[in-house]
Amino acid sequence: MSTLNTQLGVNFPKGFKSAGVYCGIKKPGLLDLALIVSDRLATVAGVFTTNQACAAPVRWSRKVVQGGQAWAIVANSGNANCLTGAQGERDAERMAQLVAQRLGCEPTQVAVASTGVIGVPLPMNAIEAGIAQLFERLSDGDDRATADAILTTDTFPKRASIEVSTPDGTVRIGAIAKGAGMIAPNMATMLAFITTDAEIPHAQLQPILARVVDATFNSITVDGDTSTNDSVIMLANGASGVRLSEASLGAFEEALYQVCEYLAKRIVRDGEGATKLFEVKVVGADSRESARKIARTIAESLLVKTAIHGGDPNWGRVIAAAGRAGVPIDVNQMALTMQGVRVFENGQPTQYDERDLIQRLQSDTVELLLELNQGDASATFWSSDLTAEYVKINAHYRT
Amino acid sequence: MSTLNTQLGVNFPKGFKSAGVYCGIKKPGLLDLALIVSDRLATVAGVFTTNQACAAPVRWSRKVVQGGQAWAIVANSGNANCLTGAQGERDAERMAQLVAQRLGCEPTQVAVASTGVIGVPLPMNAIEAGIAQLFERLSDGDDRATADAILTTDTFPKRASIEVSTPDGTVRIGAIAKGAGMIAPNMATMLAFITTDAEIPHAQLQPILARVVDATFNSITVDGDTSTNDSVIMLANGASGVRLSEASLGAFEEALYQVCEYLAKRIVRDGEGATKLFEVKVVGADSRESARKIARTIAESLLVKTAIHGGDPNWGRVIAAAGRAGVPIDVNQMALTMQGVRVFENGQPTQYDERDLIQRLQSDTVELLLELNQGDASATFWSSDLTAEYVKINAHYRT
Repeated sequence: MSTLNTQLGVNFPKGFKSAGVYCGIKKPGLLDLALIVSDRLATVAGVFTTNQACAAPVRWSRKVVQGGQAWAIVANSGNANCLTGAQGERDAERMAQLVAQRLGCEPTQVAVASTGVIGVPLPMNAIEAGIAQLFERLSDGDDRATADAILTTDTFPKRASIEVSTPDGTVRIGAIAKGAGMIAPNMATMLAFITTDAEIPHAQLQPILARVVDATFNSITVDGDTSTNDSVIMLANGASGVRLSEASLGAFEEALYQVCEYLAKRIVRDGEGATKLFEVKVVGADSRESARKIARTIAESLLVKTAIHGGDPNWGRVIAAAGRAGVPIDVNQMALTMQGVRVFENGQPTQYDERDLIQRLQSDTVELLLELNQGDASATFWSSDLTAEYVKINAHYRT
Repeated sequence: MSTLNTQLGVNFPKGFKSAGVYCGIKKPGLLDLALIVSDRLATVAGVFTTNQACAAPVRWSRKVVQGGQAWAIVANSGNANCLTGAQGERDAERMAQLVAQRLGCEPTQVAVASTGVIGVPLPMNAIEAGIAQLFERLSDGDDRATADAILTTDTFPKRASIEVSTPDGTVRIGAIAKGAGMIAPNMATMLAFITTDAEIPHAQLQPILARVVDATFNSITVDGDTSTNDSVIMLANGASGVRLSEASLGAFEEALYQVCEYLAKRIVRDGEGATKLFEVKVVGADSRESARKIARTIAESLLVKTAIHGGDPNWGRVIAAAGRAGVPIDVNQMALTMQGVRVFENGQPTQYDERDLIQRLQSDTVELLLELNQGDASATFWSSDLTAEYVKINAHYRT
């Protein structure tokens, strides 16, 4: 498999153009409207937030994904179009209509996403003018503006693309993402848009995307808050001329995983106020679900996140978080390794060198490995440290 | 019902003595060992952490509570005796034995609790000498030293007592508690010890205590981390000469609730780095369990906690937290009131006066009322705001 290109995203696969503009939702100078267009009708797949207070664009795009085919994705930042009542529903549909009119397709073939403050109606005049601008700027070259236009409090754009050799031929995958707080501030959301020039029907693409998202974007946490707007939307347009047979799906899924894992970690790395990324790997669980629950509880623990921030080898917090995950465990069977140092086994601490461990914990990437010795299942979560800066950012997001 | 006395705790009911001393676990000058003794064999009840990595003293005291009767509670702070292996089990039992020898009772009639750092063996020589000291200092007067000796990073002692008039006569309830981070730093724990001079059998006391703890100590959150050592232990010695009949149990439970609610709120108020207490009341739920899940998810949301800290009327975060609680909700039926101001109803924001609301949110006590309009069940949670100070305290707890 070829290496990841982190300087190009959704424009890398054949047959896709995109653009990003400022339309007037955010402060002048900040891009706030993005469009990704396929040159032909594409297969669409999507994974959305499970939050029941989900935003209007999420409800709209779920329907688009159910339809199975789409031409484009339009997304704005700075306003989540969430908890905006019936007007919000009409505005989400209107965004799709404005794009569909220009493409000459059905509105239900245009996915929509929004991220930003909630409870405020979208400035539809600004968006209408912005969509006209987007069509003037569509390009298949650099997609930095597209990646920038979906950001909120992110401090850097997130792009990745890869070429995949399969038995059926070479195809390409490209993606852009945004994260930041909740993952996302003020519900602002995790968004990822993925393109591929492979030809693959919805019935095959949807489960592949769901599995990959489960192990990547759904295995990260900044603050445990699930946004009302989280959306991962993927278009597969077949412009490569390569139709993926069963024999090629493994390599394709592997490459998609690589792209998504990279972007997921970039989101954690860019978590609000984050200075460190830490990986929580739980192995030897009796089921993947158990492993995920434990990994997630550790990854979300404020006490673990603050200890990681301080470089404090406070392993007891990790064991205690595992103990309250709601999964049967036996501490006497467990072993915990921090940054390669075994600190706990058989129900008690080992004789480790604390100064050495403190030294290792200064790294900006920290690995925790918890062995349960109960079975063969495992799971990995990625999380960011909790800092005073996070509090500062979120205490005054709107005011 | 008479008013709460917050200057006296476990010594208020008849027939109890207590003491607190420095034995050498914490820094000199800080009390770290406490003893509460009844002048006769008492009924004992208890509610303990559900954390599966629970500490040795928790396992010991569970057995004591199963026995139904006890003479005393011995507790140390500064060391949690948790994840300390077989030695930890022996040490917890030894603490009970040392007290039992002096009282001439069975070790299984002495409850034990510990709070502090984990994974470090208890200094048993210091504790043995400390227990001798405790017996010299036992007093039925001021119990400030007892209350102080169970604290860790708490910034003030927590005591409350009350006189209860019942159809059977007057009885007294007294209690001390500690909290702080997790609730409790480094697993340090929520502890509460309650005494009463009422005569009441274990079979009646245990369910009353369980219900009251559920609605008070189990309805508070500082950071969502459940400690390995959380324990609420209650002794009822009958020294009042009043045996509670069925007719008196309601007044008794109500008074116990009053004591525990006060102490639970004091714990939140003293949460690590906390500057505000906020109450989350969820009404109109289809079940109490649903109401509790939603109230807890809101109370634990970092985005809500930081918004409360900043006095930011970011109500969207409250609705979004409700949306991810795992309970069916209908945002179009919901209404949210912050500090008496209705901000959201029928799926969208109201036309509230934001400046007025920001003003109201400056208070050090904030009330959130979420109406679901689905049924008759309700639940209340109390939480603290999340501050940069919390991060500072917890990033370097051990180092």
